[in-house]
Amino acid sequence: MAFSERVSRLKSSLIREILAAAQRPGMMSFAGGLPAEEMLPSVDWAEMPTSMGQYGMSEGEPMLREALAREARALGITCEASQVLILSGSQQALDLTSKLYIDKGTPVLLEAPTYLAALQSFQFFGAHCLSLPMERDGPDLESLRELLSLNRPAFIYLIPTFQNPSGLRYSDRKRDEVAALLDEFNVTLIEDEPYRELSFDSVAAMPVVSRLNTTSWIYTGTVSKTLLPGLRIGYLIASPDLFPHLLRLKQSADLHTSRVGQWQVLQWLGTEKLDRHLEELRSYYRGRRDAFQAALETHFADLAEWQMPEGGLFFWLTLKHPIDTRALLEPALAANVAFMPGEPFFPEPDKHPGHLRLNFSHVAPDKLDEGLKRLSDVLRRALSQQAA
Amino acid sequence: MAFSERVSRLKSSLIREILAAAQRPGMMSFAGGLPAEEMLPSVDWAEMPTSMGQYGMSEGEPMLREALAREARALGITCEASQVLILSGSQQALDLTSKLYIDKGTPVLLEAPTYLAALQSFQFFGAHCLSLPMERDGPDLESLRELLSLNRPAFIYLIPTFQNPSGLRYSDRKRDEVAALLDEFNVTLIEDEPYRELSFDSVAAMPVVSRLNTTSWIYTGTVSKTLLPGLRIGYLIASPDLFPHLLRLKQSADLHTSRVGQWQVLQWLGTEKLDRHLEELRSYYRGRRDAFQAALETHFADLAEWQMPEGGLFFWLTLKHPIDTRALLEPALAANVAFMPGEPFFPEPDKHPGHLRLNFSHVAPDKLDEGLKRLSDVLRRALSQQAA
Repeated sequence: MAFSERVSRLKSSLIREILAAAQRPGMMSFAGGLPAEEMLPSVDWAEMPTSMGQYGMSEGEPMLREALAREARALGITCEASQVLILSGSQQALDLTSKLYIDKGTPVLLEAPTYLAALQSFQFFGAHCLSLPMERDGPDLESLRELLSLNRPAFIYLIPTFQNPSGLRYSDRKRDEVAALLDEFNVTLIEDEPYRELSFDSVAAMPVVSRLNTTSWIYTGTVSKTLLPGLRIGYLIASPDLFPHLLRLKQSADLHTSRVGQWQVLQWLGTEKLDRHLEELRSYYRGRRDAFQAALETHFADLAEWQMPEGGLFFWLTLKHPIDTRALLEPALAANVAFMPGEPFFPEPDKHPGHLRLNFSHVAPDKLDEGLKRLSDVLRRALSQQAA
Repeated sequence: MAFSERVSRLKSSLIREILAAAQRPGMMSFAGGLPAEEMLPSVDWAEMPTSMGQYGMSEGEPMLREALAREARALGITCEASQVLILSGSQQALDLTSKLYIDKGTPVLLEAPTYLAALQSFQFFGAHCLSLPMERDGPDLESLRELLSLNRPAFIYLIPTFQNPSGLRYSDRKRDEVAALLDEFNVTLIEDEPYRELSFDSVAAMPVVSRLNTTSWIYTGTVSKTLLPGLRIGYLIASPDLFPHLLRLKQSADLHTSRVGQWQVLQWLGTEKLDRHLEELRSYYRGRRDAFQAALETHFADLAEWQMPEGGLFFWLTLKHPIDTRALLEPALAANVAFMPGEPFFPEPDKHPGHLRLNFSHVAPDKLDEGLKRLSDVLRRALSQQAA
């Protein structure tokens, strides 16, 4: 059996295994990132016209493209509806970006850590993934300048607002300086913003793409974190030079996105109903985050450091005594507690031991203490074995 | 701007241009292949549970996979639900297949002519596309043996039932012999069957995959031709050795297919409601086909030869005096009539002049005569200019 060369880079997904284990009865899971089931809004389909059942345009529904362009302009992004491409979830933006840019060995630049599915998609297509070191308020700018000038990456992939996994949010100043550097080196920016609306403490700063003057860009978003992930509706907005290529890649990938899902999203965008729903969602997640912070302080204060996330769905812990957290997985699952080891979120996992990603939205507050205690016990045992 | 090497093979789609022109007011279009709008069934969403809005499994909804496996077994395909992967339209099967098998220069074997979007996907990924000559009842078996033994293709892609564009249907005997040859040479079969249910005269013979004994296979289908294309729900069923790879490729492409669309399809599969709808659909299309056949005999009997299609949505005309039909496109559009030139359906277009694909489902019967007369006039003028 002769498969393509790239199939040898299809990772046997640690995540799939963890998420499968996380489904076991009695398991307390900090591993996934599902929206809270009880916060899914109920939706109405009665008014949908039958014509939504016919084939549609690869670009997406015209009115939905208009609505998304309007929202993007409110974020400072200069764009027209003609630059909006509706996707089968924003994950598809990664696939299309990979196809557009990546040959075997193509250098691309990523935050370290970065979104796991992005890293896997780029690596699958054969990219040489370069790590951008991060500070508390965004990229280390000297490193960024050096990486851009030495490697001329095909693109840089950034998640400047409540990044999965780190929760990090770029400052206004860093956003400006990153944009200026990308313009200077003429490197394309892929900006991924699934979590912008899940903001608990403050309004997030304008996107980096809104600060670019000359270089090409793709901005991508989704309704999966705010409305209904099961609809699989995401989108990208691209600079006019990139759009025609992305449209053809979309057409080749799956012709067009479900019109039924697109119609439903259009019923929500820009409505008071959505504003109210988002307020409830933020308040719900804020409560979960605050409870998680309190429980973490009880059980992990002596073991790890972290920043309280201002948005998104995750805490990112940095161990004071870094060990390979992948080794904690088996004993943790045996103790019926699931989490995500931090190493796979880096292009070079072995060089970055000692982080854990913990989802705060799934486990009910009254079980939190028990779950985090179990996890900290597993960690303490591992540390004492290492010391012995 | 440095794109990937494969982007240079993204075709500037002649089809997109034709279909765009076909939308112009007053245009009579034989170019597309849309289901008849008036035959789209109305659907009910009232009973859909809110939980369909949550993230789902990359494999697809368990009950839908069961239902599709049951239908496949009724076609003689030995399979379990665990071999079924729900796709965002069956077009996605082409993308996943390309990723699984094709490096630059990988030989793959296709019917000549073949489905245009398949050809484009395989070529985009860099395949060396080899042409399998066809007879009235299926592949030329001597050529098939020679191509298999000399080229060892990574896979063969076949549409044995009412092929788009040719309308061709393999005989039972040819199906058996093709299966035996693929087993003998251990070449993977990709069998694409979007049109099986659109059968006007007789029940189609069992799929070729049901006749394989040893080699690997992927069988793919869709509800786009029978129910609602706007849902974008297709599927593949694969031999167990291929399934895990395809599942990971699906997960990487778009995580999972819309659950909302999957739920709707499940409301129809195996029901009397669907059987009734299919009967109406067949009767409607049969009427359109018969009217088209009559009008063709009036205007094209001296110009072309064709077989009346027993299913699907297209007539495939072979000109008695072959000329490059791409040259007819401009004068035809100027006369407000759109059609698909045959050349692009072949891996080597310039070697196969003199075919036209005509859709029979779209233009209303009372306008048929005028449309086909205009098209035949365009052809007559071109032939007389060539003779002059």
